[in-house]
Amino acid sequence: MSIKEKALKLHEKWQGKLEIASKCEVASSEDLALAYTPGVAEPCLAIAKDPKAAYQYTIKSNTVAVVSDGSAVLGLGNIGALAAMPVMEGKAVLFREFGGVNAVPICLDTQDTEEIIETVIRIAPAFGGINLEDISAPRCFEIEERLNEALSIPVFHDDQHGTAIVVLAGIINALKLVKKNKEGCRVVVNGAGSAGIAITKILLSYGFKNIIMCDRQGILCPGDPALNWMQEKMMEVTNLSRETGTLADALKGADIFVGVSAPGIVSPMMVSSMAKDSILFTMANPEPEILPSLAKAAGAKVVGTGRSDFPNQVNNVLVFPGIFKGALESRASVITEEMKLAAAHAIANLVPEDELSDVNILPHAFDEGVAEAVSQAVKEHVVC
Amino acid sequence: MSIKEKALKLHEKWQGKLEIASKCEVASSEDLALAYTPGVAEPCLAIAKDPKAAYQYTIKSNTVAVVSDGSAVLGLGNIGALAAMPVMEGKAVLFREFGGVNAVPICLDTQDTEEIIETVIRIAPAFGGINLEDISAPRCFEIEERLNEALSIPVFHDDQHGTAIVVLAGIINALKLVKKNKEGCRVVVNGAGSAGIAITKILLSYGFKNIIMCDRQGILCPGDPALNWMQEKMMEVTNLSRETGTLADALKGADIFVGVSAPGIVSPMMVSSMAKDSILFTMANPEPEILPSLAKAAGAKVVGTGRSDFPNQVNNVLVFPGIFKGALESRASVITEEMKLAAAHAIANLVPEDELSDVNILPHAFDEGVAEAVSQAVKEHVVC
Repeated sequence: MSIKEKALKLHEKWQGKLEIASKCEVASSEDLALAYTPGVAEPCLAIAKDPKAAYQYTIKSNTVAVVSDGSAVLGLGNIGALAAMPVMEGKAVLFREFGGVNAVPICLDTQDTEEIIETVIRIAPAFGGINLEDISAPRCFEIEERLNEALSIPVFHDDQHGTAIVVLAGIINALKLVKKNKEGCRVVVNGAGSAGIAITKILLSYGFKNIIMCDRQGILCPGDPALNWMQEKMMEVTNLSRETGTLADALKGADIFVGVSAPGIVSPMMVSSMAKDSILFTMANPEPEILPSLAKAAGAKVVGTGRSDFPNQVNNVLVFPGIFKGALESRASVITEEMKLAAAHAIANLVPEDELSDVNILPHAFDEGVAEAVSQAVKEHVVC
Repeated sequence: MSIKEKALKLHEKWQGKLEIASKCEVASSEDLALAYTPGVAEPCLAIAKDPKAAYQYTIKSNTVAVVSDGSAVLGLGNIGALAAMPVMEGKAVLFREFGGVNAVPICLDTQDTEEIIETVIRIAPAFGGINLEDISAPRCFEIEERLNEALSIPVFHDDQHGTAIVVLAGIINALKLVKKNKEGCRVVVNGAGSAGIAITKILLSYGFKNIIMCDRQGILCPGDPALNWMQEKMMEVTNLSRETGTLADALKGADIFVGVSAPGIVSPMMVSSMAKDSILFTMANPEPEILPSLAKAAGAKVVGTGRSDFPNQVNNVLVFPGIFKGALESRASVITEEMKLAAAHAIANLVPEDELSDVNILPHAFDEGVAEAVSQAVKEHVVC
């Protein structure tokens, strides 16, 4: 049976991948009186007096909402909220299994930016954090930013930052291998959607100076009417020498390529035109921008992909369970750039220096202690 | 330690009474590929093609949202959404323990009727039903009605119908004991809020003809400027002989008293003025309108209260787990009056005729098979 058939059969068997279980026994009238009325009035009154007590007495302390409008689901595109449910349930499963965090799938029957924002604000009381998922760019930027301003709980768009943090972790380790300095590197990011923009931002925060963003039209240049407002804003901090041309032009002499674009669009010749010891993260779905074997034969030193069947998998399950675990445990009000950088360093440091190699720059999704290490790092840089 | 202290300590220990657990193992890359990407794309595509497939592949088939705005919480009043959380979690615990139903507490940071309606509509895709909870009257009537019109999943305000269904079940059995005919009975309902109005409505549906509603001002009469729109509407079907006066006036010659009002407001003299073999449901919190011992001494035949330490407890845990279990299993689009009446009969029938007595007219919350019996009854009258 293929993975597809097997997955469908299993989903039918599960009839939903989550179960909402009770942590307290209800087997007698006394149990009822303690977990429900009249006893439950006491924690209610305590919270009415001091809203912070909600962290002490309710699931808010350890629960996030996984919110999607179904507008950009996996590689499937805009399939809508209901059809996005299996993904959101899967995400909630990973929150539980990898981070010990409760996650509730919330699929929104609207794709209007204002309606999404006001709806999330209205349902926020029960939650300790909001994980935005599979919301299309550029709406995702505004939604995340405005929710973070409006709410006192962290709001984190995983498609942006989860991916960006793992890519940075991989690049930190890859640079150790090739012994290059971040300040001197030329970086090309291909694909200027939510992930590409977040990757560019975190690389800038980390200290890269020379980043060229590309998309279908080639190198992004200021004033291009095809740019959305966020891409235009990125022109203030990228492509500072105002280059023009194709992706192939951008790659000439580049040290690092990060692709969140389309299968097969990087040729071996393009890789050959890059600087010595080039580093490639080719994360297109379901096939990478260039196969690792071809990239290596063309001169690449380190290649990462999104796939588990190649070395160096960029998998954001390394990030979001630990990020939220740390944010919830420290009652962070926001997930700052510092917390994201700390998470990337924590992930990079999980690969011991003596085990670092071109096929081992990132920990594996199932390595012990990843979420705990990320959580600890986040807690050390927390803002409440 | 008092119940209050014990409840507070336990809530602190639990730190939330719910846990969102995974039904599928994620211990290997293959598990990940089946529960999450790439396998999860298959159920997504199936749902995108046919929305009904969501019942087959997601938690929608067995999950309700427990929605509150915190405007009328237990006996605590308008304490707001966040402070209502312990009650909503408790409700979710009961859904799980008594009905095997997943329930997600959703506490809304708004008390505006329009905003509540639009928010619930927007979050509805993930849920198979909506249980409204602790929303103040008369807003609760409009919210429930408009949500039922807008959504194709059942919306049920438990404070109204849960209570009403158990009261009707108790009255059905009490009438067997006193051998009276419903058509000939004079019924007084004191307390014209959400529960009082729902009780009146279901008693009318069941076939009572002569019901007088009272509130703080005494007998409700048409044209009283203190009446809200729903109370005014109830004047078309109650107090048809247009009586005026106090609660004491109303009770003279009454066969049945149903109180969802305030402790101690019914005197023994009032009970003595009722018809022979009177039936009282005195459900005020935390003390009944009159203590059962006093009511009985004054001539009452059957007395029920909201408390577990007196006989004949009116507890809506007898209702909502089974109602939603049945509605979800049969994919009902709405919970109709017929389904509510069927639930009341099912509950009444759980007390065998030969065990029926003035202190045993209702099953106990922990009796085996209550939810299953209610669920079966509901399924036989389902509207999809």
